[in-house]
Amino acid sequence: MYKSIYAFDDKEIQKLRDKKEDRNILGGKGAGLADMTRAGLPVPPGFTITTEECTEYTKNGVLQEDLKNEVREHMKKLEKKSGKQLGGKENPLLLSVRSGARVSMPGMMDTVLNLGLNDDTVKALAKATKNERFAYDCYRRFVQMFGDVVLGVEHAKFEKLLAAKRNKHKAKYDSEVPADGLKELVNEYKDLVKAETGGSFPEDPYNQLFLSIEAVFKSWDTRRAQVYREANGIPDDWGTAVNVMMMAYGNMGGDSGTGVAFTRDPSTGENILYGEYLVNAQGEDVVAGIRTPKHISKLKEDMPEVFEQFVKVAALLEKHYCDMQDMEFTVEKGKLYMLQTRSGKRTAAAAIKIAADMVREGLITKEEAVMRITPANIDMLLHPNIDPKAKLTAIAKGLPASPGAGFGRVSFSADDAVEMSEDGKVVLVAEETTPDDLHGMIAAQAILTSRGGMTCHAAVVARGMGKPTIVGCEAIHINGEEKYFKVGDVIVREGETITVDGTTGNVIIGEVPLIEPELNEDAKTILGYADGIRRLGVRANADTPVDSLNSVEFGAEGIGLCRTEHMFLGDRVQVVQKMILAETDADRNKALEALKPLQKQDYLEMFEAMNGKPVIVRLLDPPLHEFLPSLEDLLVEVTELRCKDPNNPSLKDKERMLEKVRYLHESNPMLGHRGCRLAITFPDIYRMQVEAIYEAAAELKKKGLNPMPKVMIPLVVHENELIRLVSSLKKVAEKIVEERDVELKISFGTMIEIPRAALTADEIAKSADFFSFGTNDLTQTTYGFSRDDAEGKFLQAYMQEEVLEVNPFEVLDRKGVGQLVKMAVELGKKSNPKLEIGVCGETGGEPNSIEFYDEIGLDYVSCSPYRVPVARLAAAQAAIKNKKK
Amino acid sequence: MYKSIYAFDDKEIQKLRDKKEDRNILGGKGAGLADMTRAGLPVPPGFTITTEECTEYTKNGVLQEDLKNEVREHMKKLEKKSGKQLGGKENPLLLSVRSGARVSMPGMMDTVLNLGLNDDTVKALAKATKNERFAYDCYRRFVQMFGDVVLGVEHAKFEKLLAAKRNKHKAKYDSEVPADGLKELVNEYKDLVKAETGGSFPEDPYNQLFLSIEAVFKSWDTRRAQVYREANGIPDDWGTAVNVMMMAYGNMGGDSGTGVAFTRDPSTGENILYGEYLVNAQGEDVVAGIRTPKHISKLKEDMPEVFEQFVKVAALLEKHYCDMQDMEFTVEKGKLYMLQTRSGKRTAAAAIKIAADMVREGLITKEEAVMRITPANIDMLLHPNIDPKAKLTAIAKGLPASPGAGFGRVSFSADDAVEMSEDGKVVLVAEETTPDDLHGMIAAQAILTSRGGMTCHAAVVARGMGKPTIVGCEAIHINGEEKYFKVGDVIVREGETITVDGTTGNVIIGEVPLIEPELNEDAKTILGYADGIRRLGVRANADTPVDSLNSVEFGAEGIGLCRTEHMFLGDRVQVVQKMILAETDADRNKALEALKPLQKQDYLEMFEAMNGKPVIVRLLDPPLHEFLPSLEDLLVEVTELRCKDPNNPSLKDKERMLEKVRYLHESNPMLGHRGCRLAITFPDIYRMQVEAIYEAAAELKKKGLNPMPKVMIPLVVHENELIRLVSSLKKVAEKIVEERDVELKISFGTMIEIPRAALTADEIAKSADFFSFGTNDLTQTTYGFSRDDAEGKFLQAYMQEEVLEVNPFEVLDRKGVGQLVKMAVELGKKSNPKLEIGVCGETGGEPNSIEFYDEIGLDYVSCSPYRVPVARLAAAQAAIKNKKK
Repeated sequence: MYKSIYAFDDKEIQKLRDKKEDRNILGGKGAGLADMTRAGLPVPPGFTITTEECTEYTKNGVLQEDLKNEVREHMKKLEKKSGKQLGGKENPLLLSVRSGARVSMPGMMDTVLNLGLNDDTVKALAKATKNERFAYDCYRRFVQMFGDVVLGVEHAKFEKLLAAKRNKHKAKYDSEVPADGLKELVNEYKDLVKAETGGSFPEDPYNQLFLSIEAVFKSWDTRRAQVYREANGIPDDWGTAVNVMMMAYGNMGGDSGTGVAFTRDPSTGENILYGEYLVNAQGEDVVAGIRTPKHISKLKEDMPEVFEQFVKVAALLEKHYCDMQDMEFTVEKGKLYMLQTRSGKRTAAAAIKIAADMVREGLITKEEAVMRITPANIDMLLHPNIDPKAKLTAIAKGLPASPGAGFGRVSFSADDAVEMSEDGKVVLVAEETTPDDLHGMIAAQAILTSRGGMTCHAAVVARGMGKPTIVGCEAIHINGEEKYFKVGDVIVREGETITVDGTTGNVIIGEVPLIEPELNEDAKTILGYADGIRRLGVRANADTPVDSLNSVEFGAEGIGLCRTEHMFLGDRVQVVQKMILAETDADRNKALEALKPLQKQDYLEMFEAMNGKPVIVRLLDPPLHEFLPSLEDLLVEVTELRCKDPNNPSLKDKERMLEKVRYLHESNPMLGHRGCRLAITFPDIYRMQVEAIYEAAAELKKKGLNPMPKVMIPLVVHENELIRLVSSLKKVAEKIVEERDVELKISFGTMIEIPRAALTADEIAKSADFFSFGTNDLTQTTYGFSRDDAEGKFLQAYMQEEVLEVNPFEVLDRKGVGQLVKMAVELGKKSNPKLEIGVCGETGGEPNSIEFYDEIGLDYVSCSPYRVPVARLAAAQAAIKNKKK
Repeated sequence: MYKSIYAFDDKEIQKLRDKKEDRNILGGKGAGLADMTRAGLPVPPGFTITTEECTEYTKNGVLQEDLKNEVREHMKKLEKKSGKQLGGKENPLLLSVRSGARVSMPGMMDTVLNLGLNDDTVKALAKATKNERFAYDCYRRFVQMFGDVVLGVEHAKFEKLLAAKRNKHKAKYDSEVPADGLKELVNEYKDLVKAETGGSFPEDPYNQLFLSIEAVFKSWDTRRAQVYREANGIPDDWGTAVNVMMMAYGNMGGDSGTGVAFTRDPSTGENILYGEYLVNAQGEDVVAGIRTPKHISKLKEDMPEVFEQFVKVAALLEKHYCDMQDMEFTVEKGKLYMLQTRSGKRTAAAAIKIAADMVREGLITKEEAVMRITPANIDMLLHPNIDPKAKLTAIAKGLPASPGAGFGRVSFSADDAVEMSEDGKVVLVAEETTPDDLHGMIAAQAILTSRGGMTCHAAVVARGMGKPTIVGCEAIHINGEEKYFKVGDVIVREGETITVDGTTGNVIIGEVPLIEPELNEDAKTILGYADGIRRLGVRANADTPVDSLNSVEFGAEGIGLCRTEHMFLGDRVQVVQKMILAETDADRNKALEALKPLQKQDYLEMFEAMNGKPVIVRLLDPPLHEFLPSLEDLLVEVTELRCKDPNNPSLKDKERMLEKVRYLHESNPMLGHRGCRLAITFPDIYRMQVEAIYEAAAELKKKGLNPMPKVMIPLVVHENELIRLVSSLKKVAEKIVEERDVELKISFGTMIEIPRAALTADEIAKSADFFSFGTNDLTQTTYGFSRDDAEGKFLQAYMQEEVLEVNPFEVLDRKGVGQLVKMAVELGKKSNPKLEIGVCGETGGEPNSIEFYDEIGLDYVSCSPYRVPVARLAAAQAAIKNKKK
């Protein structure tokens, strides 16, 4: 139903566009070229082989004759349009052959430029352009690129020959190597190809073209492309299109050039033209980051007419796409050619500012603005930065390519970075990065390169990941062999710690104090839009008044989980130990009475901080032995004392403690005597906690505040547990409320965090005012994975070996755990329609999971305070997506 | 729709009988009396107040006037039939008032005899019977029984006055106390009642009657009745009927008597009349076990005509009910009265023999025979007995009341027995037992009483429970206060261990070696019937050739679970440790190669033992650290060596071991790095095991045997685990089968033992030939209960406090775990209709669970070898019950 090939000016593309299929079929680049062609912008003529043909190729492994014939036909038309002939000995047509998938995968796939040159056509090109040096420069570039991309000869081997040639001619830049040198170089390159591949360099232009098309198709399935797709969630079967286009030459002298520009600043989002160009260069020179380019604003001076035209084109494209554009262009002897336009990658801050600005500018709606930024954007904005109060001296300064600050031990290769990251934070330091370094960039906290500009590989990829990154830091000299870098006299070796400030470009020795940033106004604007759209409530998991205030700052509408066990630690652990070690009820109650005022004070502060907002207090959850010294430590201490100092008076105490710790020791504490099980066998702890909660609330109420406590009972697996505990604890609460004569809503609910609770949620819901899913424990029990053990021992292996796609503790497993959650929601609401249902596990702040929670009708999500903004956005996006479904 | 009261000869009872409602409405006793009356057997006239009236009473708490009026009317008719008047001063009618629930609850509820006596009627009775001593004996019995049962005066206080009276008259037995003594006693009893209750003994016969009816109704809700019902699964709302019947007198002299008899021997099942009687006594004298009665066969000499009549009645009743009957009778001056008939309680052996015999006699069908015995009967038959080769000396011999042998520490009260049983096995020793001792009898391994006959309380109840029990062991003298018993010069104190041989009646000091018994021929016959009826296959969990042969002996049709980790222990643990501690692949493989021939030998033996039957081999399941020394032990050892002997050459080795043990240590090993997770990260162990399995099978096949191995992969939670492991291991198996050129079916399956596996069983089933539910782990994860921790720490409390009704590790939790099992069966069979599904967890041998497994369509159950006969019967019963549904 689709053609195999569409010329850029094919009228039928409009049909694809109407069906929103143009990007799927033509790829992003092909669709952009067709758009620009239709808009009358200066695009070199050409055609696009569809993504479907890529899928076909992947299936067959050979280029079909049918397709070849169609290419030949389109070439005929292209020759007509350009007035040049492929392989022509008069006026040879040269081509660029470039990949183009549905979404941009920068640097991931292959490109061949200057295709069509051979020993005959190069001469014709020299003659036609009256520029022999230019012709041979193109030829050596072509042989080098084709040799690398199509024939698989190592890039470095070409570079070595090129460097030798520079040396011979005492040239600093490639452009200073004379025509004769380039001629020799072409022959040396061809000899290299023959030596490496055993075959001659293909002279026939059609042969070159078909081999290049195949190479682009093949590049879809390289390891690095697979890794990229996996990291970015791109399906394997999308395939890439191939764009075949007349070459435009940026390397024809001082009136030529090539560049990359953004319609707005991709780092800050500021509404100004932003980009770089190189005079007398071809496109890959900019992207590769080898020569340091000029800022786009300089083009106004170098080529004022071209600049003026370019500014208009840029404005037109942004308006057309309603999004910031990333454009490639070439100027050939003063004539502007647009080679590509696409949505530009941007930093989190830029994404947010652009979205907010565009709503103001009337370009997009609030919903579009909310969909335009990603939860990761918001998350990145909340990345740590260097504490401005910290006194520090930068040893070097580079380009601030991706904001935020990070520190770690220095590593000098991607592999080293991965390996070293197992033992802690790592910074990847390299001259430049390539797509092959992706795994190391993922593993690193921050990236530092000595070469490249703001649009080099490292910069683009790192911004996408939100990794603090500095590029083009030329002051550092890297010795990758011996694994150190030098700045002046300072030597930094592998394993030493540095801090990379991607916001300022400063490189600092050692670990620097970081601070958590606040949301800026643009972000607040967008999140405000999100709040207007989302259905899910967003609460925070917070255990202290400080965290509570923090979470309100970030927009939390309540506390979804206050873990009281955190209030049993610190100074109080001694009282808690007394309670645990008590031999009599009297002693135990004495310890509990000592704890109660402390607990009450906690609640007073929490409820006051959260005045008017619900606070769900989870009663004590962990097993009691967590409050005692570790069995192992005690065993060693006691054994040592027995050996060395058996009369030491503390031995007896330690032995008694050891006995108790042994008694309370459990084989699987995660599945042991904790949560409500403790309360069944030992009801006084929960009684004390409920007293403290309602006494605190009653006091605040008397003062005119509006405390909204809710009591949550953990680890319920059977309705009888809840019936029993709620009926007795409710009485405790009611008595307080009655005695103090205040109006306070009494609310009791439970965690759903064990499979049986989900399976019998209908029974459990009868005694609960609310459910909160504890997806951490629910995942542990549904998978039979102890998180402590799994993440250290086998979960990494499971993900590396693709047994699991994602870590189910981070992203809710919809098929398994999610099925239980859904079941519990349905059963629970059926038997208790007033039931309020939320989630307070880690997945409560994870966007993919939030989408599911919205879909199945949860009332709210609760997550750590710093995830609250992310959750607000994700909840709004979920509402938009689920509305569409 | 029902009457409140039915006379025994009420014609409408036939309607109840037709609807099978007679027992529900009239209770077992009432239905039996009506049956016997209709058959023309000599039953004293009387009537039954229905169970519905009991429920009504429990609701209101008072006897309604309507009911009282109906009682009065029925009394009129009864007076007419008997020719006597209640409270009559000429010819007074005396009554027995007895409880009677749907099923027999021996000794649980209350009875009042001789009702209607007061200071006037006693004189009339004396005159009418011309026997003053008899009349006052009845009177003192009545006051005593009424005082105890209705007015709540302690039984022992009456007994004390009676004993004083015996002393005064130098009487050995009560029957030797003269009439005057009894007259005095009546007055003393009345004084006692007044002192204890503050009120006079009620003289009005109707008042006596209504109070007694109320007392029977109330007795339904006593603590001991509740405990009994709970232990026997009897619903609380069934209620008890009340039978009011003319008294027949066994205490009117030498031509009178009372007795209890069974139509067959309740101990062995032998088809002979079996029972006991006392001359000149009332019923409670026999049941209470106070006087030692005569064997029923002696009745032939004492009262030949009565005996002849009784033999006929017994035969008729057995034929009528098609079941062995337990009958109560009284002979009043040579006239036989039948007071009760019911299905007789019997030992396991008797139940089985009677069922098998009755099929042969044509009385019942095979299905009826299978339903007639309980899985517990079969289980009891498999109870240990004393090894006949053991040399032992009995210190005393009593009546062998309930067969099998048991040992434990001596305890002298029910409460002590319960308490002591927490620390190990206990034997309960008492003069006699009462229904109040039930909790102690449940807690004890065996029971020994110094008084009572084969039909006393201890004997009847213990037989029902299958507890080894000796009664009437008069040689032992018990001092309950000081907690010891004496036999001659031997003193046995609380806490010392004795063995009770309930098969022979021998009491032995200390612990005696026991042996596991075999199934007898009758049991084999019944199990043969069961095999013909059941749909479920029955396999055994066995890890050794010996266990395998054993299980075949017990009727297993295959091995449902062979746990290979048991083959990694013993001598082999050192090789296993080498494998675990190996630093290189080479070292590890060397260790694996050393293990392989040992594993292969195991399989050769297993497969040969199970020739022609499937053997499911589960690959290694536990975490590796289970094969290393314990962390705690090592810590202590290393710390001690460091202190005391730091130059000891073994310290280094121990430190290395400690390091490895620490490395492998897990917080929650149950949820840790084990099962197929080990195989994903460390594939060589499973490869070695699969090689050993198929090499062994191929060798046997070459020899002409028919090995049927199946390989089971444990702990799967995601289809990818199974896909990966099955695809690689299948190749290993196929290669062996191909190389050896044998025909062997290759079969791979998985345990379903983690909730996620059940939830995604459709995906998992695609790579599995079979599923086997591991209900132990599935219960642990579905409940979030670590069994090791739960059973020691809180599960007992949960059951005592009735948070849980039963231990879910013993009886499958249908609502929670069962829901997952059912879901997995449906999902699994849907995506793979050839899937074979079984269960190999502990519940695979538990009758209630087996019924569920039959219902949801499992193919087989697998359990420990000694449970196999139980499972065969339970599976047949399940098939019969599920067919009816």
